[in-house]
Amino acid sequence: MDELPLILVIEDEHAIQGIVDDALTEGGFATDILSSGEEALTLFLGGLKNYKALVTDVALKGRLSGWEVAAQIRETDPAFPIVYMSGAHADEWASKGVPNSIMLAKPFAPAQLVTAIAQLLNSVPPAAT
Amino acid sequence: MDELPLILVIEDEHAIQGIVDDALTEGGFATDILSSGEEALTLFLGGLKNYKALVTDVALKGRLSGWEVAAQIRETDPAFPIVYMSGAHADEWASKGVPNSIMLAKPFAPAQLVTAIAQLLNSVPPAAT
Amino acid sequence: MDELPLILVIEDEHAIQGIVDDALTEGGFATDILSSGEEALTLFLGGLKNYKALVTDVALKGRLSGWEVAAQIRETDPAFPIVYMSGAHADEWASKGVPNSIMLAKPFAPAQLVTAIAQLLNSVPPAAT
Amino acid sequence: MDELPLILVIEDEHAIQGIVDDALTEGGFATDILSSGEEALTLFLGGLKNYKALVTDVALKGRLSGWEVAAQIRETDPAFPIVYMSGAHADEWASKGVPNSIMLAKPFAPAQLVTAIAQLLNSVPPAAT
Amino acid sequence: MDELPLILVIEDEHAIQGIVDDALTEGGFATDILSSGEEALTLFLGGLKNYKALVTDVALKGRLSGWEVAAQIRETDPAFPIVYMSGAHADEWASKGVPNSIMLAKPFAPAQLVTAIAQLLNSVPPAAT
Amino acid sequence: MDELPLILVIEDEHAIQGIVDDALTEGGFATDILSSGEEALTLFLGGLKNYKALVTDVALKGRLSGWEVAAQIRETDPAFPIVYMSGAHADEWASKGVPNSIMLAKPFAPAQLVTAIAQLLNSVPPAAT
Repeated sequence: MDELPLILVIEDEHAIQGIVDDALTEGGFATDILSSGEEALTLFLGGLKNYKALVTDVALKGRLSGWEVAAQIRETDPAFPIVYMSGAHADEWASKGVPNSIMLAKPFAPAQLVTAIAQLLNSVPPAAT
Repeated sequence: MDELPLILVIEDEHAIQGIVDDALTEGGFATDILSSGEEALTLFLGGLKNYKALVTDVALKGRLSGWEVAAQIRETDPAFPIVYMSGAHADEWASKGVPNSIMLAKPFAPAQLVTAIAQLLNSVPPAAT
Repeated sequence: MDELPLILVIEDEHAIQGIVDDALTEGGFATDILSSGEEALTLFLGGLKNYKALVTDVALKGRLSGWEVAAQIRETDPAFPIVYMSGAHADEWASKGVPNSIMLAKPFAPAQLVTAIAQLLNSVPPAAT
Repeated sequence: MDELPLILVIEDEHAIQGIVDDALTEGGFATDILSSGEEALTLFLGGLKNYKALVTDVALKGRLSGWEVAAQIRETDPAFPIVYMSGAHADEWASKGVPNSIMLAKPFAPAQLVTAIAQLLNSVPPAAT
Repeated sequence: MDELPLILVIEDEHAIQGIVDDALTEGGFATDILSSGEEALTLFLGGLKNYKALVTDVALKGRLSGWEVAAQIRETDPAFPIVYMSGAHADEWASKGVPNSIMLAKPFAPAQLVTAIAQLLNSVPPAAT
Repeated sequence: MDELPLILVIEDEHAIQGIVDDALTEGGFATDILSSGEEALTLFLGGLKNYKALVTDVALKGRLSGWEVAAQIRETDPAFPIVYMSGAHADEWASKGVPNSIMLAKPFAPAQLVTAIAQLLNSVPPAAT
C-alpha cells in the first residue's frame, strides 16, 4: 500500500486551497490542486494519474464552472465521486449538480470534507485491481 | 382525502403514454400527460395545479430534453421528485440528471415506475398543509 | 405460506378505513382496523396476534394520538415498523415521530402506503421463524 | 418497449410458484420459474436471455442452496439484484447472503416481493442499452 | 470561510465535555457547550448564533431531558441535525428519539461523533446563503 | 466513559498493521490486532472482550480467508459490523462478502477506514447497556 488515494481539487482561493489540502492530507489522501477547471479537466482526461474523486469549488474564475467540470468528468466515468464546495450557490446543487454527489455549503468543517470523500469512495462498488 | 396526488408526465409515444397512465392510475395517482417539455413547463410554472412529481421521457420531440425540463423545475422547487425514463440514453443520467432523481431504463415494469414515485414521495420531508 | 403478514391499522374515518383496507388487502396483507389508539394498544400488548407493522392516523378521537401509540409500541418492540398518515399535522413528524418511521401526507396514493410498508418490512433484519 | 423485464425465479413448491408468478406478472414483469438451482444456473450462464434479477427460495431440493446459486451468479455479474425467500432460514442471511440483496421472511405479502425487486432494479446504476 | 460551523453541545459531565470539545474542535467545528437543556434552548431560541447541529447527552440534571430539548428544537427547525449520546438509555432512542437523528451509545470513539455530525450535515439539502 | 470501543483487526502485513492501528487509535478506538483468522476467531468466540467491529484483510496466510472469518462471526452475531480490506480480490466482495459490510480497496486512506467503522457503528440500532 505504497501509494495514497489521489484526489483532484479545483479551488482558486489560496486560503481555501490550504484548508482543503491540510484536511485531505491529514486524512491520508494525496492531492493535486488546480485553480481552474480547464487545467483540471486536462489532467483528468490525460489519464496519467489515477484520480479517485473530485473536490471542486462551484464558482471558478475560468470559462468552466464546477458544475460543468463535474458533468464532463461523469461523461467519461459515470460513477466518479464528486464533492462540490459553495458559498453563495449552494441551492443550485439540486438543479445543476450530478446524481450521487455531495454539496458542502461554506463554511464547512474540514471533517465534513473528509467524511464526504470517504462516504462516496466507500459506497462505490469495488472493481478488480 | 378527496383529491389524488397529481403526477406530471411527459411522453410523446402513444403506447408508452398508455402504459404509464395505467400504472399510475392503478397505483392511485392522478396524471396530466403532455407530449412536449414546453407544454409541461408551462403548466408547472403556471401554478394552477399542485403537482407532486415529474415523470419524463429523456428524448423528446421538442426543443427541450427531459434533462432540461427537470433542471428548470428544480430551479423553482429544489426538492421536486423526478423520474426519468430512457431507452438509449440511460447512461447519461450520471452526468445530466439531477441529484436525488431515479432513472428507469426501458424496458421497465409498471411496478418499477410506481415504486420509484412512491420512494421519492415517501422520502421528501413532510411540509405543513 | 398460509398466513398473510398482519398489519395493525388505526383510523377513525370510515372512508379512509376503506381506502387503506383495499390497498393493503390488494397488496397481499391482512389487516386489523381499529378506530382508537386505546383499542389498538390493547390488541398489540395482548400479544394474541403477530402484527408486522402499524399504520396510524395522527389525529385520533380518543385520548391517545398516533404519536403516543407509536412511542408506546416502540417501547415494547424497538424496531417495529410505523407508518403515520396525516393531513394537517404532517410537519410535526420531525419532532414527534419515532426514528425509522415514514410519514404519508394526505392526500396520498394507495401505492405510496403499500410501498411504505414494504420498504420498512424489507429493511428490518430478518429473525429466525 | 415491447419486452418486459425478465426475472429468474427458483422455487420448488408449486403453491408458492403461483403466488410469485402472479405477483410479478401483475407488477409487469416476465418470469422464468425453475424448481432447482442447477437448472436456473444453466439458463443464467447460457446467456440466451437477459435476466434482470433473481428471486430464489433458500432451501432447495437439489444439491445447490439458494445462497450458493446467488454467490455463483454474483461471480459473473457482481451487481446482479438478488431477492431471497425463506421460512426457517431467515437468520442465515446475515452470514450467507450476498451484499446488496434483500431477504423476505415467509410469510410475506406479494407487494413486498414486487417492491423488493423494484427497489433493487431502481438503485442499480443505469447502463447504455 | 472565516467562521467555522457552530455545534451546540449539552453535557453535564466535565470529563465528557472535554472529549466532545476536543473531537469537534479537531474536526474543524466551533462549539458552544452548556450543562443544561434549559440554557441550551434559551441560546438556540434566542437566535443570536447560527447553530448547525445539536449534540446532547440524554440524561441531564435539569428539568428537561435530551429527548425533550431535541423535540423542542425540531418544532422550530424540522430538519435540524441531532446526535444523542447515552450510556444507560440507548434503547429508548427508538421510541423517544426524533426521525433522522443518530444515537451514540457510550462508550463511543471521538471519530464516531465527528462522523455522525458530518453525515447529518452532509445529507441536509443545501439552502441558499 | 473510561473504556474505548474495541475493534478486532486481522492483518498479516506488518506495515499495514501499523497504518490501521494508527488510524483507529487516532480516531479514538482501541484495537486488538491479530495476524491470522484462527487467532481472531478464538478471541471473538472466547467472549472475554466486547468487540464492536471487525476489520479484516481478505487474503490471509492461514487456513481461513477474511470472507470465512466474517461469515463465522455473523453466525454468532448477525448484525456485527465488518470492514474488509483487499488489494487484488476487491471484486469478490459482491459474491463472498456478507450483507451490510463495507469493502475498502487498497490503497485506501486511513480516513476511509475510520469513516467506514463509524458509519457501520452509527447505523447499528442501539441496544441497552
